[in-house]
Amino acid sequence: MISKNQIKFVKSLQQKKQRDIHQCFVVESTKNVLEILQSDYELLHLYATEHWLSVYNIKYECTLNVVSEKEIQRISSLKSASEVLAVVKIPIEQNNIDLKDVNIVLDDIKDPGNLGTIIRVCDWFGVKNIYCSNQSVDVYNPKVIQSTMGSISRVEVVYTDIVDLIRNSSNEVKIYAAVMDGVDVNNIKVAENSLIVFGNESHGISQEILSLIKEKITIQKIGEAESLNVAVSSAIILNKFCV
Amino acid sequence: MISKNQIKFVKSLQQKKQRDIHQCFVVESTKNVLEILQSDYELLHLYATEHWLSVYNIKYECTLNVVSEKEIQRISSLKSASEVLAVVKIPIEQNNIDLKDVNIVLDDIKDPGNLGTIIRVCDWFGVKNIYCSNQSVDVYNPKVIQSTMGSISRVEVVYTDIVDLIRNSSNEVKIYAAVMDGVDVNNIKVAENSLIVFGNESHGISQEILSLIKEKITIQKIGEAESLNVAVSSAIILNKFCV
Repeated sequence: MISKNQIKFVKSLQQKKQRDIHQCFVVESTKNVLEILQSDYELLHLYATEHWLSVYNIKYECTLNVVSEKEIQRISSLKSASEVLAVVKIPIEQNNIDLKDVNIVLDDIKDPGNLGTIIRVCDWFGVKNIYCSNQSVDVYNPKVIQSTMGSISRVEVVYTDIVDLIRNSSNEVKIYAAVMDGVDVNNIKVAENSLIVFGNESHGISQEILSLIKEKITIQKIGEAESLNVAVSSAIILNKFCV
Repeated sequence: MISKNQIKFVKSLQQKKQRDIHQCFVVESTKNVLEILQSDYELLHLYATEHWLSVYNIKYECTLNVVSEKEIQRISSLKSASEVLAVVKIPIEQNNIDLKDVNIVLDDIKDPGNLGTIIRVCDWFGVKNIYCSNQSVDVYNPKVIQSTMGSISRVEVVYTDIVDLIRNSSNEVKIYAAVMDGVDVNNIKVAENSLIVFGNESHGISQEILSLIKEKITIQKIGEAESLNVAVSSAIILNKFCV
């Protein structure tokens, strides 16, 4: 059973303001919830159908609400809710800036699907850290969580002043900007410690940040499309940097 | 002004059955409509706001409806409609199978965003032909069109029996399957004429098709994500095959 207050509370977490107040977020669908259960994230509430609980014999240390499919649809942000939904505590941000190996910087990414897919791509290629400008879409947005496909538990996303981050990075870190008119990424020699900056979906990387970066890289265009999606671009570039 | 019948007609085209009956589909947003206007596609009706028409001084040979923003929202499939929408004739399928250069085969792709993004990726890398199994998502689905970002006008999508296509391809065409346990795509020597097969989002490539293909290729995994999105995978692989 689910109360009106519970419905109101879970649904309110679709808004960033409410997530900030309550310091928790929602994770939906089997893959995502199972990954969260295996991670260091702290689960607060689990909503699942009897059927789901019988299929996935999970261990949990939080309040459990056994709900019907109809009830879970009422708290879901998805068009077709899955049989499980978790309310998870937002971890305390460590803000440890560690620029060893390959790191991603996102300058005002706005589309939640893009951020989620970039997190999944980073997880595939073993990239542990994403630094987002403070104006980027919130990582705990339900659409971001949904498109990470569980990778959220293995990639750290830090919101910070990325101009300062770039300015204060040591000489041992090479900084690259993914742009339309740089050197073909297939032809560069990749530095051991690197920061790769990707820009906003419409405006690209801001002028202020571009002026700080010497190494400009590009995915060579053979056809006529005006641009590539930023998540797609990050995947092509990480396949060069990480493999 | 827009009539009730017009609203009903344009909205009905969100369904494949109605698109098949009327042999037309809907294109929304400035980028997509401008690309269609420059292409060989035949426009039937154009709905645009006065403001849009004053900004984009376009030439058209179809009925024009000057509409308000409120009116265009009523016929749009988007949450926030753009200021322009076109109803476009579905071209007569040529069914010319030409496997020169690099070609993509999609085995039951179901997500419209994925097909749209793959079309955009193909357009970036100069791939002209995509062959879809008959069970794949319809290319004229509004979400597919939206995510092509105008590339639909330069990439031909053909629905066909892909088992026959693979069986009947000449020896001069090398066929590759994108799978989880193949050879690292970074290390292969790419054939001049190639067919690259990508599978369904959940089940991958069907056993019947896999059994026909010797060359299995993979994007090397460094981290822990279970899989990569199929559109992201196609981009990484085409960056190897086309550049």
